[in-house]
Amino acid sequence: MSDVTIERLCIIGTGLIGGSLALALREVRAVGEVVGCGRNPAHLETAKTLGVIDRFALEPAEAVQGADMVVLAVPLGAMHDTFAAIAPALAPDAVLTDVGSAKTSVVRAAQAVFGSLPSGFVPGHPIAGTEKSGVEAAFPELFRDHRVILTPVETSAPAARERVRAMWEACGAHVVEMTPEHHDEILAATSHLPHMLAYALVDTLARMDDSQEIFDFAAGGFRDFTRIASSDPQMWHDICLANHDALVKMLEAFSDDLRLLADAVRRADSRFLLDTFTRAKAARDAFCKK
Amino acid sequence: MSDVTIERLCIIGTGLIGGSLALALREVRAVGEVVGCGRNPAHLETAKTLGVIDRFALEPAEAVQGADMVVLAVPLGAMHDTFAAIAPALAPDAVLTDVGSAKTSVVRAAQAVFGSLPSGFVPGHPIAGTEKSGVEAAFPELFRDHRVILTPVETSAPAARERVRAMWEACGAHVVEMTPEHHDEILAATSHLPHMLAYALVDTLARMDDSQEIFDFAAGGFRDFTRIASSDPQMWHDICLANHDALVKMLEAFSDDLRLLADAVRRADSRFLLDTFTRAKAARDAFCKK
Repeated sequence: MSDVTIERLCIIGTGLIGGSLALALREVRAVGEVVGCGRNPAHLETAKTLGVIDRFALEPAEAVQGADMVVLAVPLGAMHDTFAAIAPALAPDAVLTDVGSAKTSVVRAAQAVFGSLPSGFVPGHPIAGTEKSGVEAAFPELFRDHRVILTPVETSAPAARERVRAMWEACGAHVVEMTPEHHDEILAATSHLPHMLAYALVDTLARMDDSQEIFDFAAGGFRDFTRIASSDPQMWHDICLANHDALVKMLEAFSDDLRLLADAVRRADSRFLLDTFTRAKAARDAFCKK
Repeated sequence: MSDVTIERLCIIGTGLIGGSLALALREVRAVGEVVGCGRNPAHLETAKTLGVIDRFALEPAEAVQGADMVVLAVPLGAMHDTFAAIAPALAPDAVLTDVGSAKTSVVRAAQAVFGSLPSGFVPGHPIAGTEKSGVEAAFPELFRDHRVILTPVETSAPAARERVRAMWEACGAHVVEMTPEHHDEILAATSHLPHMLAYALVDTLARMDDSQEIFDFAAGGFRDFTRIASSDPQMWHDICLANHDALVKMLEAFSDDLRLLADAVRRADSRFLLDTFTRAKAARDAFCKK
């Protein structure tokens, strides 16, 4: 049994993340009714058939009616309009959170809509996902032993922070808090930059003359390395725009380092190459021990 | 039962690749005696205890005595000296191959030693491996359903090509032939460049101020993406030097493309980002269907 009880959960954007959240909360009986919302009625019907949601509404303002917990699991590019759509209908004591992969942009979007932010608003980001998307890919264990970062703002009420934390802990996640700005730096480094590299690598190879042959000879290491290039293009487009500043900084830092490495390869600098590879292997091995 | 019978197989460099080859050939009873050779007696004792080899010699010239098949599974940087060490002792009708990850450099090393190349010499490269190394990591299924690229040279006798091909097919591998130059281009694209990116990424993050926190928040995608950065630094140092020209070319092509992508992020060019990600996802999904 869980110590969080949500009477009516409204999930706007019932895809992999939103759907998995609903399934996880249902599994521990932490939620009464689940109301889905999205733009595509067929997807919502699927979500209902799969037992992810109890009912749905196509209008966000209708979907949030009477909900004590509202979760925005829409693409980052849709956050602003979704805030605007729910603002008039949100219950005054409702807790409002989101699952966006960038946080300062979500806070900015909420500020643009609400002016002074509701005390129930606690931005969040579960560090979980697969390269798949859609409610069909949802499963209740997605967040188990994963991190969820909450980035409360000055206006976030302690009780709302507790409610959001308890919701994610009920899904088996480990919750930490930090500022939106710090979140965006960390994620630019560990997630957004690697996605850029994987996309760029696959695209570089795909545009080469002998690309078919190249892919034919790619082995397991390449498969692992490029898995994240199968992620949803629209989502990653949105992330690039939303976490623009931190990502540009990371791309610059990486490009500088890659240039140094390429120069070392060019001049066959044994010491530089061996030092870099040895340092990187030690860091990666240490990271993976945990 | 296999249609290749090697009476005495000499494997110089009894690590992951050499050890797995011996185990695979033993499993299908395609080999009589296996003689190991290496610089470290303790490793060779381990190889003997594990049943990978029957006996060993520390001197290559002694190890190749009477062997009808000699496989060089030493680091690329040791190829030249190993050719030099075995040259006086190699049986005239012995078949000689290697497993180096770069091929033009191996051919150059052999030419420097032998002058005109022995007709039994057929360079090769099994596209298989893990981020682990050493004979303890060897297992007989390593090559099953993997590609092996042979890069015969003008002097390679058809019978020798057939023997090397049959040896790898007995291990369950799919054998193809191409020129050493073409091999090096393909591998620079699919393997050597991705390793550079993984090493550079991990090193960039490891040298950041908040590197510990960054690694703490890295998730599954990062783990997959950086797995190859746990590969053996000395081996990758050797590959950088051995496949210098093709790798420098690939690093330049990738850096140009990454610069274009970074510029698109900087100016928030939606069309460019979405096009690139969509193209890359399509290429990666098509690659992984096979």
